[in-house]
This record gives sequence, structure tokens and C-alpha cells, in this order.
Amino acid sequence: MTIRTMGFCVVAFWLSTGWVGAQRAEPIQPISPATIDDPRMMELGKKLYFDPRLSRSGFISCNSCHNLSMGGSDNLKTSIGHNWQKGPINAPTVLNSSMSVAQFWDGRARDLREQAGGPIANPGEMAFTHELAVEVIASIPQYVQEFETVFGTPTVDIDKITSAIAAFEETLVTPNSRFDKWLSGDSAALTPTEVQGYEVFKTSGCVVCHNGPAAGGTSFRKMGVVEPYRTDNPAEGRVAVTGRDADRFNFKVPTMRNVELTYPYFHDGAADTLAQAVDVMGRVQLGRRFSEDDNAKIVAFLKTLTGDQPTFPLPLLPPSSDKTPRPNPFAPTSTR
Amino acid sequence: MTIRTMGFCVVAFWLSTGWVGAQRAEPIQPISPATIDDPRMMELGKKLYFDPRLSRSGFISCNSCHNLSMGGSDNLKTSIGHNWQKGPINAPTVLNSSMSVAQFWDGRARDLREQAGGPIANPGEMAFTHELAVEVIASIPQYVQEFETVFGTPTVDIDKITSAIAAFEETLVTPNSRFDKWLSGDSAALTPTEVQGYEVFKTSGCVVCHNGPAAGGTSFRKMGVVEPYRTDNPAEGRVAVTGRDADRFNFKVPTMRNVELTYPYFHDGAADTLAQAVDVMGRVQLGRRFSEDDNAKIVAFLKTLTGDQPTFPLPLLPPSSDKTPRPNPFAPTSTR
Repeated sequence: MTIRTMGFCVVAFWLSTGWVGAQRAEPIQPISPATIDDPRMMELGKKLYFDPRLSRSGFISCNSCHNLSMGGSDNLKTSIGHNWQKGPINAPTVLNSSMSVAQFWDGRARDLREQAGGPIANPGEMAFTHELAVEVIASIPQYVQEFETVFGTPTVDIDKITSAIAAFEETLVTPNSRFDKWLSGDSAALTPTEVQGYEVFKTSGCVVCHNGPAAGGTSFRKMGVVEPYRTDNPAEGRVAVTGRDADRFNFKVPTMRNVELTYPYFHDGAADTLAQAVDVMGRVQLGRRFSEDDNAKIVAFLKTLTGDQPTFPLPLLPPSSDKTPRPNPFAPTSTR
Repeated sequence: MTIRTMGFCVVAFWLSTGWVGAQRAEPIQPISPATIDDPRMMELGKKLYFDPRLSRSGFISCNSCHNLSMGGSDNLKTSIGHNWQKGPINAPTVLNSSMSVAQFWDGRARDLREQAGGPIANPGEMAFTHELAVEVIASIPQYVQEFETVFGTPTVDIDKITSAIAAFEETLVTPNSRFDKWLSGDSAALTPTEVQGYEVFKTSGCVVCHNGPAAGGTSFRKMGVVEPYRTDNPAEGRVAVTGRDADRFNFKVPTMRNVELTYPYFHDGAADTLAQAVDVMGRVQLGRRFSEDDNAKIVAFLKTLTGDQPTFPLPLLPPSSDKTPRPNPFAPTSTR
């Protein structure tokens, strides 16, 4: 089955689901607003997400690279880690990441909770250890009080820290994009050009991979299906997790939601603009060169996927106590 | 005149101002809530304050080192600059900085507008140039639109950028501390220990320097009046601005407002805790060793100076356009 006919089948599947009313049956579905199961855990997780004390330097927080002022990304090709280390891969947006089949480009974390522990202890990112992160948080009285309220015990551990961060991240969804309004039956929400762009996106086979509410995140796919994708980036993708040669250069399909905000694109951050990204995808994944007109239409459609960004008051972090270990960002890596 | 009698005179001056009603006449006055002259300029400045695109790396914003989640400071001895450079001096809090006689520890900027341009172009901080910062902001359509709304012209220049940032910073005041409630006549706002701590603070001469609404920021004073202050930090203070030997080791007196949140202390960040800071100040500035009891009382008083922190929704930054120059944080310094 070729990519194109696969695309057709997916479209046909969605068309056949027989939704009633104004809702359109499409391979991409509207995003629902977040439901917050435990507001207190979410609020605790929000503070931790913004807290640079989870890093060795006291300078890098989750929000440093997944910046909620900037589409949940850092808009860099690859991120800056502890001691200005160059990250190995483009930081994916945190927005709508709860909808992904797994976390990280290679899917090595099953869920957001498991993901959240990764950067804290990664020597190239926050460069801390889970033990030291727990020691810092447990030394801050207001945090201890919040952990007791949320978890019923004042004991801080890394599972509680990452669970709270994940609970916050699960709320970071972006409903009400213009495309979602159109999906929900509001034909005036898109311009004719944008609708045409969506039609090209759909009929060209893009939706084979970019489907579901997040328009991506549902599968791993080879980067370079039709022709090899050329890059200096050494990342090998899912093979690092499965050990299977067949998974070499398979990466998690990124979400197209808010893609207007999450430049640069691809796992290596090589495409600065949407026009470049659409061109490359057409060539290496679909074996086609989009005309300038089609490219512009697809880009116009992609920009309709920008939804309501999470808005909330900037969190105020509880102060360290006299007992809190102090960060020393300039110490040699072997000591703290 | 000794420090102690100077302190007495300051107290006597304030006691003689003859305020009526419940308001207490003290050398420290309550902080008034911010008045916002131009809400649109303030909102523009808020975005710019949080925008890392004003830095060469695309990673460092004003908020990186003057973090409004953390008392307007970074809680590091000295800040982390471009390429993980070690900053020369402790980052002062931005909170209530509009009340300072001048900006920076050595007062080399007259006001917040002049200050805001400094870190952007400082090779050890944001490491950009004003020209490149303007080029980036002018390439972002939503910013251009906001500049036109605020300034009546779409032309972006560094003066407009820093004026907007300063307009935002002027709103970053922290009224309603427990001490301010006490100053305003609410005797129950402080515990007897905290009131005793204030009495020791006042009668020991601390208010000679730490006076006015910000409890500091009104003058430059020598660090090490009675005995030399020993530090590895090479900063020489106000002499760098005036060229006068008499100004060697003169630094702007830091505000005591929100001091609970703005650790570590002093221009070199050498004091990790308030107890240490109070002890050192007693010895090198006043020639006295505070008893443990007095030290604890002063610390208890200082913690009543934590006011309402600025709260506002995390700003959402306008996306770069295809024309926006992209940051390259890992490029050699000589190129961009």
C-alpha cells in the first residue's frame, strides 16, 4: 500500500464513522478543553515546572526549554543544557503532549510522568540527580506542606515530583483553534485558501501520519520514506529503544498543533520555516514537490491549528530555607 | 558623626514629620500600589521582559536573571550569562527597583530605561547588540503592530524597547507586606518578636542606609565601614562611575523589601542566609556583634517585608516571522 492510498484509506475511515450534526468527520479531531482531576496537584506541578531548583545550576527549569510563552518550545534548533551544552535533538512542544503515544522523539518514556524525570537527571540538560532534586524540594517548607496536602504525606520523592509535573502538563492543551471551529461546523472559521490547504494536506497523504486530535503524536514513522533525509544530527530514532534495525530513523510523528509557534522543525531543527518544512516533507516522505501555490496553501492551513494557549498567573515559587542546598552553577561537574 | 548617631538623627527626622492618624512615622514608609500610566506600553514591556529573542542565544530574557517567580532575582551568587559565563556581581531584584536613586550596584544607569539596555548588549550577559535586537523585534509583525499602537509609529528602536520594559518594571512594586500593614496602624500585623526585631534594626543604625519605602536604594555606602569586607569579588563599586577614590567599595544600598526571597545577599552573593547577612552587616558596617537573639529578631522583622508579589498571566510572545533572524547559541562569538 502506498503512502497515498494509505492516506486515502484513513480519510475513508473517518468519513465512514458517520458522525451526525454539524461536526465534520475528518482524520483530525477537535481538541477538548482540559479536565483537571486534582487542582491542587496541578498547582503543585505548575510550580515545579517553573522551578529551576530542579536543576544542578539552579537556572534551568522545565519551562526553560518548553517555554509556555513560546508555544511550549524554546524555538532553538537544539536546546541549551547545563554549562551551555548543545542538546542532541530539537525540544518538542509540551503542548498537547499528553495525546502522544509515548514521550521523547524516540518514545523512550511511556508517559509524561516518566518523561519528567529524564531531563532532571540528564547530564546534558538539567544535570541534577533525582536524589539531590528531592533533597532540595524537601528542604522547602511550603513545598513540603503542599506535598502533604496533595499526597497525604509530607515525604517528597521523585515519583511524586514527576506525577505533579505530569498532572500540570496534562492541562496544557490548546482547544478552540480556527481549524477546530471549522471541524465543529463553523464554515466561516477558515478562508477558502485555508480549506484548500487542508484538502491538499489530506489528499497528499500528510494525514497518514498527522492525524488524531493532535494532528500527530500517534505513531513512529521513518524520517525519509521516499528519499533519505540528510542531516548532521546523529539521532537514530526509535532503534535506540527497540534495538530493531527496522526502527532506525523512525521518530515519533510530531504534532502539527500550534506549529506556527514551534519553529524550527524536525528532530534536528533544520527547517526554520513552515514553507521549508512542507517542502522537505513532500520530497522525502511523499515523493512529491509541492508547487509554491500548494505549499503556501498548506502553510496557511497549518497556521489555523494554533489554539488557545494555556494562560495562568506566573507561578510564585516558595523560597528556599536556610537548609536548602545552594546551587553552584560554576562548580566542576564532579562536585556540587 | 557615628553611624549610630546618624541612625538616631534619621529616626528623629521621621518622628518629627508629624504624620497624623494611624499611620506610624518611621524611617521606612509603606509601598503604594503601582499606578499604570499607559497599560498598552506596560503590556508591551511585559512581553519584551520575557522575550529571550532580545539575547544573542535566544535563551536569556530579562526574566532569566530577574525572575518574577523568585522575588525578581535568580537566587544565584552571580548570574549565568551567554555561553554560561559567570557574572561579575549578584543580580539585584527588579522588585521596587523604580524607587532606587540609580540602577546597578554602582549606579551607572540613571533609571530603569537606561538600565534595560545594559544587559542586552553586555557580552557577558545577553551578548547581543542593540542593532540586532531591534532587527529581531522589527521582524515580528505582532510586535510592530503593538509598537505602532503604543508609540504612534511602527518603527522599532532601542529607546522604545527599553522604555516599554521600564514601563513594565515600574509596575513591579510589592505593597501590603505585614510590615506595611503595621506601619499603617495595624498593630496585630506583627508579632512582638518582629516588632522587637524592627526596634533593634532601627536603634542599631541599620535604617541609616535601609530607609525610605524600599528600605534601601536611596544612597551609595561603603561596604566595610568599620572593618574591611573580605571578598574574592573584584567589583570596586561606585568608583567605576565617578573615578573618585572616595567611592571605592561604595555600592548602592540594596532594598530590604522581599529580602526573604532574594537570597543570596551582598554584591558578591556571599551570604546564603539572612542570619549570615545580618551578622556580617553588624560587624563590618556597625562594629557590633548582634547576639543570636537579636539576630533572630532582626531576621524575623526582615521577613515581614515580603509584600504582594506582582501577579499576571504568563505573557504569550508573538511568533517570529520567516524573516526573523534565527538565534545560533552555539556559534562562535565573532559571528551570529
